[in-house]
Amino acid sequence: MATATSYVTSPPPLKNELDIVIPTIRNLDFLEMWRPFFEPYHLIIVQDGDPTKTIKVPPGFDYELYNRNDINKLLGPRASCISFKDSACRCFGYMVSKKKYIFTIDDDCFVASEPSGKKINALEQHIKNLLCPSTPYFFNTLYDPFREGADYVRGYPFSLREGAPTAVSHGLWLNIPDYDAPTQLVKPLERNTRYVDAVLTIPKGTLFPMCGMNLAFDRDLIGPAMYFGLMGDGQPIGRYDDMWAGWCCKVICDHLGLGIKTGLPYIYHSKASNPFVNLRKEYKGIFWQEDIIPFFQNVVLPKECTTVQKCYIELSKQVKEKLSKIDPYFDKLADAMVTWIEAWDDLNPVGASKANGKA
Amino acid sequence: MATATSYVTSPPPLKNELDIVIPTIRNLDFLEMWRPFFEPYHLIIVQDGDPTKTIKVPPGFDYELYNRNDINKLLGPRASCISFKDSACRCFGYMVSKKKYIFTIDDDCFVASEPSGKKINALEQHIKNLLCPSTPYFFNTLYDPFREGADYVRGYPFSLREGAPTAVSHGLWLNIPDYDAPTQLVKPLERNTRYVDAVLTIPKGTLFPMCGMNLAFDRDLIGPAMYFGLMGDGQPIGRYDDMWAGWCCKVICDHLGLGIKTGLPYIYHSKASNPFVNLRKEYKGIFWQEDIIPFFQNVVLPKECTTVQKCYIELSKQVKEKLSKIDPYFDKLADAMVTWIEAWDDLNPVGASKANGKA
Repeated sequence: MATATSYVTSPPPLKNELDIVIPTIRNLDFLEMWRPFFEPYHLIIVQDGDPTKTIKVPPGFDYELYNRNDINKLLGPRASCISFKDSACRCFGYMVSKKKYIFTIDDDCFVASEPSGKKINALEQHIKNLLCPSTPYFFNTLYDPFREGADYVRGYPFSLREGAPTAVSHGLWLNIPDYDAPTQLVKPLERNTRYVDAVLTIPKGTLFPMCGMNLAFDRDLIGPAMYFGLMGDGQPIGRYDDMWAGWCCKVICDHLGLGIKTGLPYIYHSKASNPFVNLRKEYKGIFWQEDIIPFFQNVVLPKECTTVQKCYIELSKQVKEKLSKIDPYFDKLADAMVTWIEAWDDLNPVGASKANGKA
Repeated sequence: MATATSYVTSPPPLKNELDIVIPTIRNLDFLEMWRPFFEPYHLIIVQDGDPTKTIKVPPGFDYELYNRNDINKLLGPRASCISFKDSACRCFGYMVSKKKYIFTIDDDCFVASEPSGKKINALEQHIKNLLCPSTPYFFNTLYDPFREGADYVRGYPFSLREGAPTAVSHGLWLNIPDYDAPTQLVKPLERNTRYVDAVLTIPKGTLFPMCGMNLAFDRDLIGPAMYFGLMGDGQPIGRYDDMWAGWCCKVICDHLGLGIKTGLPYIYHSKASNPFVNLRKEYKGIFWQEDIIPFFQNVVLPKECTTVQKCYIELSKQVKEKLSKIDPYFDKLADAMVTWIEAWDDLNPVGASKANGKA
């Protein structure tokens, strides 16, 4: 019988198993602030705009940088599935990584502090979250039972205490909360100052708004579903890239018996994006999600879908069938989902063949 | 369009709308410690054991006390549904109350402190929780959007922001965690020292282990489902009274569109009960819940069940049909569930007729 504490260990640094993926870095303070935490890891920087502009990465970091020309060269016609002039392009980094774990972060996210003043090592907490099981089948009122000093409470069925492998660790934000444009406009001065010392599993069957600002995941378990969709240049919406990935990942995790955690670690989100610009990007998404959410709440994946890729292709079919009536955009998005998987499998032949059961 | 903050108000004291229900008080320090918080309210004390023993309530408290003789006198043959020599008898207090809200607490639960050292007014937080909507249909990553300084995050569908009326507020415990006997035996020294500054809604479709130590609810919304079952003297199990009530309440809340919150407020749980005694009480429950949980996870209530009473009677039928094969105890429990509703409706004729749509 598993006791929760048997999983509580100091997380290994995972230096050779984790890549940090960052969309365009507009602010070099960002890298300086994270230097003590990021230097041991490999960075993948995906530049979202004009490829002639160069990002100067200060010495000491181990990195590779991709601009649009690199993406086009590497993917050929399939590059169409990668967003342009939008931070959604970061998912290209997930695809080219060869590591088991990914941590992705925005360049306006700085190191946050605990109430005690101690600087938060966000990466370390994400790794802890990913290395401990999730508990999607029953709610534990003392939150993550695998944290030090916690366990399953009275009444938690013993047969469910093994939990499920954790595929995604969703971290939160102090200071500027991740609000939509209408809420930003209504509450321009609201700041998140509440440090909630908890990690918890999003229960099976429940959707959540996944934010890409401070996010880690297990590429082997869920990578091919972490597609950030078509946003930015030439697309009718923005700021729904991470949401799209979150909805897809959640239904696939639920289907495959994987878990998603949210809560710690916090980062310090330094500045709010312009609410007027955001409103222009978001307004179609705000309408559309009223249909998209019921769609995802009712998605059923057939039991033949035993890999992330198979689930994702099936999902793309259902998107085409059921969401295209909202807007032709979803027809295009469904095609891009298929292109994404083709490109993923091309760049990840071993993983792909393993995932498809051909190995 | 509702903004979450429109609900953030200082909670009214609800002096004439809330009763505090306490099973046997073995320790008068308990009342002295809570005096500043409890004195404004009416207490209902339900004595669980020998009726010849008297509980001396110190002056200044407004209270009524029921012992077994009172229960027998008031309910007649229906008194059989109220447990004897077990704190599960507290649910008799829910039945005789005439107030809209109930707060129930154990006599080994003292006033806890925030990390700042400030004493926690548990009642005030429960009232806040009950007066703000729950969010069972979609997970909000910044927890309760109705708390000060919080809101719905980007990607939360606007049509779901009204939430659902909150029926239950489940508070937590610092110091001695609410562990089952096996976990108590394995980790005798574990103490809960983590103050998690959060309130959150248990999502629709997810079960949780509801602890009766520090619990508040809206009698009008869910009262008749707050039955603590048959425990203690003459029964084969104990320590599953609150769990049973929690499972029943959760499936009925899900069916009726009501919400259950968990998290703040904390109380200080002063002493662990004897793990050997607990093991004797619990061990059948530990086996049985492996079947009970799937039962509750799969319960479907027909749409004709439009009141708590109708839901509860329907649930009793399904318990008889599906759980009696585990043990004859469930046959008896299913009958007691019906008796409980009959007694409830007898003592609450207006509420009953209102709830049954006869008014």
